Amino acid sequence: VDLTLHKVFLEEVADVEGFLVGCSGGRDSVALVLALREAGFKNVVLAHVNYGLRGEDSEGDERFVCELGERLGMEVVVERAGECPRNGVEEWARELRMRFFERVVSERGLRGVVLGHHADDQAETVLFNLCRGGAGLRGMKVLNERGGMGLFRPLLGCRRDELTAFLEERGESWREDATNAGGGFTRNRFRHEVLPLLVEVMGREVVPQMTRATEVAMEEGAALEEFLAGLDLYDLQGRLFLPKVQMLSAVLQKRVLVNFLRKKGVSGLDGDTVERCCVLLKEEETAKVNLPGGRYLRRKEKRLFVE
Amino acid sequence: VDLTLHKVFLEEVADVEGFLVGCSGGRDSVALVLALREAGFKNVVLAHVNYGLRGEDSEGDERFVCELGERLGMEVVVERAGECPRNGVEEWARELRMRFFERVVSERGLRGVVLGHHADDQAETVLFNLCRGGAGLRGMKVLNERGGMGLFRPLLGCRRDELTAFLEERGESWREDATNAGGGFTRNRFRHEVLPLLVEVMGREVVPQMTRATEVAMEEGAALEEFLAGLDLYDLQGRLFLPKVQMLSAVLQKRVLVNFLRKKGVSGLDGDTVERCCVLLKEEETAKVNLPGGRYLRRKEKRLFVE
Repeated sequence: VDLTLHKVFLEEVADVEGFLVGCSGGRDSVALVLALREAGFKNVVLAHVNYGLRGEDSEGDERFVCELGERLGMEVVVERAGECPRNGVEEWARELRMRFFERVVSERGLRGVVLGHHADDQAETVLFNLCRGGAGLRGMKVLNERGGMGLFRPLLGCRRDELTAFLEERGESWREDATNAGGGFTRNRFRHEVLPLLVEVMGREVVPQMTRATEVAMEEGAALEEFLAGLDLYDLQGRLFLPKVQMLSAVLQKRVLVNFLRKKGVSGLDGDTVERCCVLLKEEETAKVNLPGGRYLRRKEKRLFVE
Repeated sequence: VDLTLHKVFLEEVADVEGFLVGCSGGRDSVALVLALREAGFKNVVLAHVNYGLRGEDSEGDERFVCELGERLGMEVVVERAGECPRNGVEEWARELRMRFFERVVSERGLRGVVLGHHADDQAETVLFNLCRGGAGLRGMKVLNERGGMGLFRPLLGCRRDELTAFLEERGESWREDATNAGGGFTRNRFRHEVLPLLVEVMGREVVPQMTRATEVAMEEGAALEEFLAGLDLYDLQGRLFLPKVQMLSAVLQKRVLVNFLRKKGVSGLDGDTVERCCVLLKEEETAKVNLPGGRYLRRKEKRLFVE
């Protein structure tokens, strides 16, 4: 068994100095590290976060990753977490991890961090997002830019079983309960209950179908963005020019508006806020809407802008 | 409780002479008939198919619908099925129903047929399609044109529970096991197992989120089609002009090609055929691909056409 690294990843990192690999010590990230080594990547630094959530087991995970790095001749950097909060452990862990990755990537001038998410993770994410609401079919991307850091997921096309077979064939072990990125009780129920039920009901695999559908939807979404970008909806000051926006259908107007707000750095947008902002798109309505973070969306002279 | 008929339906049928309403006698279609009457629609003809699959119960369904029509002052037309095949009962029933609807709609010069699918049906459809593969998030539409007949689903925004409450509030009854359009063992498992599990895992409703996401995805898909239509990818003979098509991304090229084949009346396209057709998009490859129905897709002088 060989694991196929996604071509977008291979193209993007072909010329880079090096990158970080997030490694919990669990199956997915160990398979990732070994697949990267087999693909010939040399300048790879392993990044491990010891959250200290599982006592001696957490120490064992850290030792495991350090030994893996030593054996493969890869440097390992470890972040040890401070005290964990009572609530929102998952968000805390994610923030901690991301800040750590960003710091190391920035300090060493790396291209980004590589993560071990695979097709089964993607299917869970897609279903979870679909149930949570929001626009269309959304999953993880092979490449996400986060500030100056690239977030790569070269195994998104591989099944979990392939990762297991890959490791077993090579006689490699992993830490069974290593705290992983997917985490969370709800996510685990999607993995252990929802997806198996779907396979049973359909009488065949569903993950390849779902991930393929997601890939197409995300590429078509990108195509739609390109078309919208070509419509020249902004004035010279970068304000949204309403007479042009108003020629679009309601769905596209909303999409343009959300894109605009995100581009202006407005975060924490919920559905209600977006709906209130959409009112500004119509000529005769209110001229100002409150945004998160004490900012405003204003309409003036047929233009929308954030202040 | 009032049932809100979708605005696309209300706009489309505002000026029409009349339409047909598919009525099995089950909850969904009985609620539909009563909601249409409350909305003031007069020139409504009920269409019932007696498949003869459930013996005396089938006769009971037919009588129920005839009595409903009589009570409401609506004409009822009934189709009685011939012998049912051993296999493919569902396809057979759908074909029978559709041919019957088409015949009556055409004979009487009606705008189309109205069906009782609701939001819960939509969520099942979306999940089922997602598991089956194919592009993006696909559900039923409020309006589908099928030949000269409109297929309307004005209750797509209503929940099944709303339909039940609507009927109970009015003291109306329905036939509990009336053969309905959704049918099928797999579909039933989505209804009775998959959707309830998703609600339990998420700890809240999922149908509104899923149907909203689908609506957005379908509207964005339509927007993408409009953009593609504006690109003028055909020559004067209606052939696909490759130099323009080749400037699009691979995903859009495929979408354009599938649209083109459908427009040319090619049906029964499977994924393999589409992939083989995509080869023709590249300049240096084969010049002819077999299509279903003994037709061909050909490339000649940088153009694709069906013959």
